[in-house]
Amino acid sequence: MRLRNKKWARPWLKEHADLVIDQEHAIALQGNWQSVFALNQPIHVEIGTGKGQFIIGMAKKYPMINFIGMEIQDSAVAVAARKAFEDEADLPNLKFIYGDGAGVETYFAAGEVSKIYLNFSDPWPKSRHESRRLTYKTFLAGYQTVLPKGGELAFKTDNRGLFEYSLYSFANFGITFMPNEISLNLHEDADKMVDNVETEYEQKFSALGFPIYKFTGQFD
Amino acid sequence: MRLRNKKWARPWLKEHADLVIDQEHAIALQGNWQSVFALNQPIHVEIGTGKGQFIIGMAKKYPMINFIGMEIQDSAVAVAARKAFEDEADLPNLKFIYGDGAGVETYFAAGEVSKIYLNFSDPWPKSRHESRRLTYKTFLAGYQTVLPKGGELAFKTDNRGLFEYSLYSFANFGITFMPNEISLNLHEDADKMVDNVETEYEQKFSALGFPIYKFTGQFD
Repeated sequence: MRLRNKKWARPWLKEHADLVIDQEHAIALQGNWQSVFALNQPIHVEIGTGKGQFIIGMAKKYPMINFIGMEIQDSAVAVAARKAFEDEADLPNLKFIYGDGAGVETYFAAGEVSKIYLNFSDPWPKSRHESRRLTYKTFLAGYQTVLPKGGELAFKTDNRGLFEYSLYSFANFGITFMPNEISLNLHEDADKMVDNVETEYEQKFSALGFPIYKFTGQFD
Repeated sequence: MRLRNKKWARPWLKEHADLVIDQEHAIALQGNWQSVFALNQPIHVEIGTGKGQFIIGMAKKYPMINFIGMEIQDSAVAVAARKAFEDEADLPNLKFIYGDGAGVETYFAAGEVSKIYLNFSDPWPKSRHESRRLTYKTFLAGYQTVLPKGGELAFKTDNRGLFEYSLYSFANFGITFMPNEISLNLHEDADKMVDNVETEYEQKFSALGFPIYKFTGQFD
């Protein structure tokens, strides 16, 4: 969902260029992402981080992982980063990229990312927009490039059509499905909810009774 | 679901051994199934045909396909076959096997079956019963043996756990997922319902508002 444009966003992003890395600097950091974090730890990336509830929640919950939230909308990434900055003070294991998810292989070196999260991505329901879906094969190829062998892709959505399409796309790309890591109604699966961190959409739509779909797969 | 035992079933099956082929004769027919049908046509097999509404409906709808309903319960296969025999008179493209789904590769020769249907199979929800599920890898290997390259497996269920498990099992067996052939709520998908033939369970549970899951994949 597109946020209303926020006038403060661009100046704020410029002032916090150490927290929110722009596309040009992200490309320059390829292969050296550990240098922006306090500790040398596995890196997990969320593509389309929106207003940041998920990635901030993850960074607080898992201090032994370095998290990067990538977001193409300036207003959204500014809201997310400001929340992390003001409400959570310093999270030394969290950074943001203000940039395009299509560029993931230009930002990261081969094997530099341990896990990728896609949460409630734009469904692009029309067939002619298939190639814009973040689970389209060209995107999957990008994720595969930056993940090591066995690297994971975790995907959550409330959009049935996108989930159906993505199951097809994952399987035909040759991603290994992990046992007990598919849920067609996540919030009814107590054992799969133990480690769940909600996004804003997830909280809203699951409260309304809509099923949340989840999938985690592994790249060869 | 296990039907109450019907005393008339066994004698009826003996009297209609041309319509309902027992395990011994099914094994003897391996490679020669066209001989039991009026016309030489592609053969589709439903494993676990229950009371037969699906396979009878398919046989009526698609006269250019030869259908075989396989069922391990004598009472169920007798109900199905008697329905076909009494209500529908002669369907020259429909036979039944009173036998075990685990034996599919002992009944059919390599490539003898064009398509396999699994409808509302027993979910066997306990982990220790995984190997009894009709989508467990040993069953998939059996289906692959009797199907040609590109042969299809169509699967419908209302059981979420079984569907989640089966998506995992299909993908990791290397079955090709077909675009637009996955539905997480079949009866809400008008375009996927056009050719749908309901089973007894499907009719009952979809009327109660439960989602019906469907998947069709292709073997290499």
